[in-house]
Amino acid sequence: MPHFNPVELILAKREGKALAPEQFSAFTTGFLEGSIPDYQMSALLMAIFFQGLDPAEISSLTNCYIQSGNTINFPPSLRVADKHSTGGVGDKISLMLAPIAASLGLSVPMISGRGLGHTGGTLDKLESIPGFRTQYGPAEFQALVEKHGCALIGQSDELVPADKRIYALRDVTATVESPGLITASIMSKKIAEGAKHLVIDLKIGSGAFMPDLARARELARLLVSTGASFGQKVRVVFSNMNSPLGLAVGNALETVEAIEYLKGNPLRDTKILTSELTAQLLLSAGLAATGPDAFRMIEDAVASGQALTKLEEIITAQGGDPRVLEDYSLLGTTSVKIPILAEAAGWVKAIDCRAIGYALVRIKAGRMKVSDSLDYGAGALLIPKIGDKLERGEPIGEIHANHPAQAEEVARLIRAAYTISPEPTNKEDLILDII
Amino acid sequence: MPHFNPVELILAKREGKALAPEQFSAFTTGFLEGSIPDYQMSALLMAIFFQGLDPAEISSLTNCYIQSGNTINFPPSLRVADKHSTGGVGDKISLMLAPIAASLGLSVPMISGRGLGHTGGTLDKLESIPGFRTQYGPAEFQALVEKHGCALIGQSDELVPADKRIYALRDVTATVESPGLITASIMSKKIAEGAKHLVIDLKIGSGAFMPDLARARELARLLVSTGASFGQKVRVVFSNMNSPLGLAVGNALETVEAIEYLKGNPLRDTKILTSELTAQLLLSAGLAATGPDAFRMIEDAVASGQALTKLEEIITAQGGDPRVLEDYSLLGTTSVKIPILAEAAGWVKAIDCRAIGYALVRIKAGRMKVSDSLDYGAGALLIPKIGDKLERGEPIGEIHANHPAQAEEVARLIRAAYTISPEPTNKEDLILDII
Repeated sequence: MPHFNPVELILAKREGKALAPEQFSAFTTGFLEGSIPDYQMSALLMAIFFQGLDPAEISSLTNCYIQSGNTINFPPSLRVADKHSTGGVGDKISLMLAPIAASLGLSVPMISGRGLGHTGGTLDKLESIPGFRTQYGPAEFQALVEKHGCALIGQSDELVPADKRIYALRDVTATVESPGLITASIMSKKIAEGAKHLVIDLKIGSGAFMPDLARARELARLLVSTGASFGQKVRVVFSNMNSPLGLAVGNALETVEAIEYLKGNPLRDTKILTSELTAQLLLSAGLAATGPDAFRMIEDAVASGQALTKLEEIITAQGGDPRVLEDYSLLGTTSVKIPILAEAAGWVKAIDCRAIGYALVRIKAGRMKVSDSLDYGAGALLIPKIGDKLERGEPIGEIHANHPAQAEEVARLIRAAYTISPEPTNKEDLILDII
Repeated sequence: MPHFNPVELILAKREGKALAPEQFSAFTTGFLEGSIPDYQMSALLMAIFFQGLDPAEISSLTNCYIQSGNTINFPPSLRVADKHSTGGVGDKISLMLAPIAASLGLSVPMISGRGLGHTGGTLDKLESIPGFRTQYGPAEFQALVEKHGCALIGQSDELVPADKRIYALRDVTATVESPGLITASIMSKKIAEGAKHLVIDLKIGSGAFMPDLARARELARLLVSTGASFGQKVRVVFSNMNSPLGLAVGNALETVEAIEYLKGNPLRDTKILTSELTAQLLLSAGLAATGPDAFRMIEDAVASGQALTKLEEIITAQGGDPRVLEDYSLLGTTSVKIPILAEAAGWVKAIDCRAIGYALVRIKAGRMKVSDSLDYGAGALLIPKIGDKLERGEPIGEIHANHPAQAEEVARLIRAAYTISPEPTNKEDLILDII
């Protein structure tokens, strides 16, 4: 390796220069090996926050993340596809999308995250199923996907370890919100896991980290171009996160909602979003020729019960108790149910989804730190969306918790998260755009 | 202390918000105690690099540095004054200014630094005097100043330890060049050492870190306002660093030049700058009523020999061998002297002083790391300034070194640092402005 001075590299980025692939490689390798200390990495990350990364730099960094660990290579005959969500409140789409897609012939190697802050995580929802195992090495993971068409696991130390260590550092140095760093983090995992087709649910609104569509489009362009540079086809669905998604927010409650969906009882908004995201994968992989074809296939997969059967197969394959499909109490229950009632009649003008997510952390439906424990049964059912009309005393929803006083407090906080207007307000579209 | 989250504080600065005094205090204290790791400090420093610090924040940070260690309080009857230089090539002004000022009734508690990169350091020049001790605790330091009117020492671990640790981190994270951080670092030392009057030699040009007068003025305003917020009177002399200062660059050679100055043989440029900087201190402290009075006092202090006597007193008080004043060979000599000859006739259009400084590091007249050893005898005598005329084959100067091949290489590099033009070029003013 030629002479490499980490300070000069930080300085170059600080001055807005683009870094070369070998510079990213030397810096990341040095960081993982310990020759470059945390404080130099965090200085570089903050310089990147301010100066950004161009598409070539993002590909370089993504490649460093991928090369830092193992990668999964599925046989070329498989149509390997995955979905990524940028995180929201009540987002249980993966629990429906993965079995539907697998039942239709896609191979879905889905690596999910845990809930943190106001957002939930698929991994926690899966772990509300007794016995469900989420930690697998790459070879076992690949074997599960090849045999069952799908596996749902947590991040492994063997895949993209550089991302894991750098993300942990970003989290404690206020360097998370960088489009280039976000792109490298998302895409490295989805490329290393072997997905050839990726659909990204890029959420915008009060429960998302993206405040507006313009900035979401910028990020989307980076996601698509980075995927393309690794031969991955990426589609992006921009979705509205100003109202909680579906009815349930909380791990067991959301899992029940997902099972009910696959039993043929979908809610309006989760059906729109699940169908759209799954359809994009079927189209990308060539399993459907047109949008209407794709939607019909998805409808049939649910109506025939084959998607529910696939979920049962996955649960069983990963050590979970399939009786949860009939006996929801196995997922976790709570002793207290408190209604949240509207204090005035009117139309729902705004919902602070972030505040709802944070409120639910108080009853352990979510967590502030990765090490915090969860109460799987805890959560809320939340009925109205923006634009819906409420009468005075009509239920906004109900809290499921194990401590009455905490439940009352959370009910109060969630009620305060709804802005009720005496004037009618417009309903909002769930899907804002697709690229 | 109220709830304090370091990540929120980094985030606030990243977003351009001003931090409160107690936030700086909590962060700095946490850093020194070890509860805030290096990587969070370096992320904050990089955020400060991009977002800056306002004058109130700079005073807060300066105060944190001061409060992190001891401070020196001289009796109010003393007129305590000091000079700070932002660093240059051939800058031995302190070695003349300190004894002149002390011989005229000022008390000079001068804490100096070591050479690093292309710039020299007063501490290294002093240590070319056999036996000269530069490490003293605050009480001994104060006693020396009170007894002899001056002491010249290195940075103590007991004064502004926060600055020392944070500066070391800035050095390895490319966060040095921040006006706010530079101001806090300079001013905290000069306030903690008890100086009530300060003159700053703010250098601009090819051998300085400041590229232009406009940016130097910005920094000067911060230095003056920060000093004022601690009751310190600060004057700033903006000086030209496009030509090496004086004749000698190198530790023993510069010490010889300083002694010769005090024997009544000053060079033109060092006399202008030494007189101006010393005069500003005499005026600030009320020892001279007018500029002409101050210049006359300074002239007399040298002509009468009292400044040289004061230097001898300081050397003796700090354990140095005063015979160096007569026998320069005691400071260090070299076995090789190589001339640097002009290859073409013409006028000196530009001098890359930074390149000269870095070239001299090769013969250990300077250093790249604080831990590098020095050859006190090594260095160069460099004659022409910008605008001077040279004949072909006329000496630009000579290299003093201990290895012929290295000396030749350095002579070649230094010759290349001089741009000779066939057209006459203007001489430049040494003093650009004073505030």
